[in-house]
Amino acid sequence: MKSYRLVSREVKNEKTLVRVKDAVFGGRKVVVIAGPCAVESREQLLAAASRVSQAGAVMLRGGTFKTRTSPYSFQGLGEEGLKILAEASLETGLATITEVVDQASLELALEYVDMLQIGARNMHNSSLLCMVGRSGKPVLLKRGLSATVEEWLLAAEYIVAAGNDNVVLCERGIRTFEHVTRNTLDLSIVPLVQELSHLPVIVDPSHATGDRHLVVPMSRAAVAAGADGLILEVHPQPERALCDGFQSLSTDEFDCLMPGLRAIAATVGRVA
Amino acid sequence: MKSYRLVSREVKNEKTLVRVKDAVFGGRKVVVIAGPCAVESREQLLAAASRVSQAGAVMLRGGTFKTRTSPYSFQGLGEEGLKILAEASLETGLATITEVVDQASLELALEYVDMLQIGARNMHNSSLLCMVGRSGKPVLLKRGLSATVEEWLLAAEYIVAAGNDNVVLCERGIRTFEHVTRNTLDLSIVPLVQELSHLPVIVDPSHATGDRHLVVPMSRAAVAAGADGLILEVHPQPERALCDGFQSLSTDEFDCLMPGLRAIAATVGRVA
Amino acid sequence: MKSYRLVSREVKNEKTLVRVKDAVFGGRKVVVIAGPCAVESREQLLAAASRVSQAGAVMLRGGTFKTRTSPYSFQGLGEEGLKILAEASLETGLATITEVVDQASLELALEYVDMLQIGARNMHNSSLLCMVGRSGKPVLLKRGLSATVEEWLLAAEYIVAAGNDNVVLCERGIRTFEHVTRNTLDLSIVPLVQELSHLPVIVDPSHATGDRHLVVPMSRAAVAAGADGLILEVHPQPERALCDGFQSLSTDEFDCLMPGLRAIAATVGRVA
Amino acid sequence: MKSYRLVSREVKNEKTLVRVKDAVFGGRKVVVIAGPCAVESREQLLAAASRVSQAGAVMLRGGTFKTRTSPYSFQGLGEEGLKILAEASLETGLATITEVVDQASLELALEYVDMLQIGARNMHNSSLLCMVGRSGKPVLLKRGLSATVEEWLLAAEYIVAAGNDNVVLCERGIRTFEHVTRNTLDLSIVPLVQELSHLPVIVDPSHATGDRHLVVPMSRAAVAAGADGLILEVHPQPERALCDGFQSLSTDEFDCLMPGLRAIAATVGRVA
Repeated sequence: MKSYRLVSREVKNEKTLVRVKDAVFGGRKVVVIAGPCAVESREQLLAAASRVSQAGAVMLRGGTFKTRTSPYSFQGLGEEGLKILAEASLETGLATITEVVDQASLELALEYVDMLQIGARNMHNSSLLCMVGRSGKPVLLKRGLSATVEEWLLAAEYIVAAGNDNVVLCERGIRTFEHVTRNTLDLSIVPLVQELSHLPVIVDPSHATGDRHLVVPMSRAAVAAGADGLILEVHPQPERALCDGFQSLSTDEFDCLMPGLRAIAATVGRVA
Repeated sequence: MKSYRLVSREVKNEKTLVRVKDAVFGGRKVVVIAGPCAVESREQLLAAASRVSQAGAVMLRGGTFKTRTSPYSFQGLGEEGLKILAEASLETGLATITEVVDQASLELALEYVDMLQIGARNMHNSSLLCMVGRSGKPVLLKRGLSATVEEWLLAAEYIVAAGNDNVVLCERGIRTFEHVTRNTLDLSIVPLVQELSHLPVIVDPSHATGDRHLVVPMSRAAVAAGADGLILEVHPQPERALCDGFQSLSTDEFDCLMPGLRAIAATVGRVA
Repeated sequence: MKSYRLVSREVKNEKTLVRVKDAVFGGRKVVVIAGPCAVESREQLLAAASRVSQAGAVMLRGGTFKTRTSPYSFQGLGEEGLKILAEASLETGLATITEVVDQASLELALEYVDMLQIGARNMHNSSLLCMVGRSGKPVLLKRGLSATVEEWLLAAEYIVAAGNDNVVLCERGIRTFEHVTRNTLDLSIVPLVQELSHLPVIVDPSHATGDRHLVVPMSRAAVAAGADGLILEVHPQPERALCDGFQSLSTDEFDCLMPGLRAIAATVGRVA
Repeated sequence: MKSYRLVSREVKNEKTLVRVKDAVFGGRKVVVIAGPCAVESREQLLAAASRVSQAGAVMLRGGTFKTRTSPYSFQGLGEEGLKILAEASLETGLATITEVVDQASLELALEYVDMLQIGARNMHNSSLLCMVGRSGKPVLLKRGLSATVEEWLLAAEYIVAAGNDNVVLCERGIRTFEHVTRNTLDLSIVPLVQELSHLPVIVDPSHATGDRHLVVPMSRAAVAAGADGLILEVHPQPERALCDGFQSLSTDEFDCLMPGLRAIAATVGRVA
């Protein structure tokens, strides 16, 4: 018997659709979320939002409460960033997502954004999982740095068991001995998790590879493997980004990426 | 330049002594913390406390807020467990330690115990690290499941940067491809971290190996490698434990362990 | 400065084309190698060869000297298997490849097959690398179980330094903590290695995933990521295979796979 | 049922004693093998041999056929090195061990040394395992870079199944995400493998840690964990070594190490 229940195909065979404004995760359309690692300023975010919207993204990402490895790294704009996200949403019609890290950031985020993100570093934070579960808001649950598939599905189980079945899983690379890429993107588990669970599964090639040059081929590979969506770091000026610039696509690069993704989506019976 | 500062030997060369009642981490004495994985009942904890105290432990461990991988596993007794810990401390004179997982559990723990534990699953939870940092209470910081030494020291840096330099590091095994042991105990980093940092470093062979038969040899190895202490799971009836019974020593086994540790400690200029 | 030289783009920028009869690795066409894990009998191999040829494979694989983890597993038919491979080649026109494991198997293979394979377990066997280097025969070099990209390229350097630049690299999954798949297919390194080296890079989704259900999506993903080819286990009756049946496609499944690969290849400017 | 048989405690419960001249692996005495990574010259080896013999080592190590990751690294002196080893043995009475990598090096080594070593990079080389098995000479079998305990015991099974039960296992660190040490020394598997198998198990802290400062504490830890021996890199002038100098003890450091090991051995009922 498997340790997870509610998220299992054995309990519910039909694929779950998670709706966030116009975006539907788990349907025919490959959902593309794009935007900068962190909200840095009004200008930066509005520029990014406008461009990714035109190119075909349906959701806008932007971190305002960052879980940084070092206490000396940029920790995010907090509520000010959330307001900028809300404004960008109003201007472009894009749904928004931001990471929450504790009760305080969750309470703020609930007022301003359409979807909550649990980052890899908090996947095992069961207290936070219960809180976002009780909130009822759609949740993007990233796989932990070295979480097994079973632990990841059990983390989703915490959220669903708290009453919230609007959960989308996100593969973002795992930690291995190989250090030429930031993490090792474990794409095989996309079709595997889709077999085990009814929850949608998307892919984050930006954090997985840590290298903008690899984001384009891995985005294509993710769509070909059947991913239900992508979350991509896109910055108007990656070379000036306050975090993770080396793995961000420029808005021009994002423009070029989208037509190719549509072509591949078509070969696997999807649209992008 | 290293990314951590305050915890580095470069900033403070002298070894930090962390005092918790009669226990002093970082001195000549190898500090032995013992007790059950979880506080299950008054009887269980008082029995464990009395026995480990007689055998030479100076601190009592017992989980009351558990971070379990599955929402269906035993989640701990909460405040009731803390009261039992406090009673056991009063009876035996042992200092106490328990894991905290969020603001609520932290606030309660501050009233009842002598040292706070940050578990492996929360090592990257910077929000919690800041909170225990501001509390000023001694903290035992476990290494994350797949945290590098640098990330671990940066997690300690979060606590010290928040004003609390009473931090003890705890190696508890890392996640590798090898599954015959629960985790891979990375004992080499004990002398290495003692070189890099002035903070005391102790070892948890119970979680690292997940196998009671390996706890005795690995406890000896840890002391021989120069660890500043040990944290061991000891249960009056391991076969009836609500969690992790297979890796708990019985109180009789703990009795047998201690004289051997004292002998090894003597060979490396320590006492146990 | 990088430790490898001859295989580096810095020394030779132009992509190397490795020709094996009609197959050309590194060109516009995605080379598909197919066939059973092991040559088991004349009937089995001829049936597989005829079907994979019709479906569009250009090379036939079949192990005759197996490197098995256990001395009690099937070790291969040896020279008898090589004769069957040669007969299948004559009947279908397919080029052939087999694994060599030492001097004796190498000497035999040189008489019968068109390409030599160095398996993951021998990637660090520098004595064997030198021998296949001196042979001048095209070589497929699999990545070791936990080899870094640098070590893999250095293994290729051994072959090229011995005078043989007909080397094709093959990603076949690396060993990680995750055991729901046999190995973790590290697809990101395909575009990365193509940047670092002029040698062609192909992918083995059969050994990487160890699960026939994942072979189809991961084959698609590999082509979308820009791989120069695929090596696939295909068996006329996977349920009766003497080794690795659970990861072999049936010949019918292989028929279904090929049109989808052609469609994806077209979206990235390739043919399959 | 376990996949290995002949090496299992279930088939033979009594501990195997492997005798190499005066050294007996698996008995009460902790066998210490010491010497340089590679035989570089007559002067270097004789100097090392004389010093390690005086300090209490009973076997002399020295590589003459090196398996190097790069074709441009020092590959060893070959037969000339073997002659120097034999001379050092004659002068000091120490038994000798060297690594073999293929049939040619094996045939030469059989003439000159007392024990053969299979390195980590060849643990999966079943052709070589069979050859050393048929030779009947005592074999030290290192664990592969990322070999599971089961694969390691199956590699030993190849040797024993070929008729040679003089096999000693050697833990030398595994490959993990952690790169502050060269490998992660997996000391917990020493007592575990001693439970599973009747073969002696020794530890190589030099290759495991890759850092001379960690060799002393990890040698102590290995003895405390119950290892049947140690293999240590010791060089008269580590700063001038042609390979692995940073992880070699000087002969003076080796002198200082031995008394401490003897003290720890005594606490676990052994002599060193």
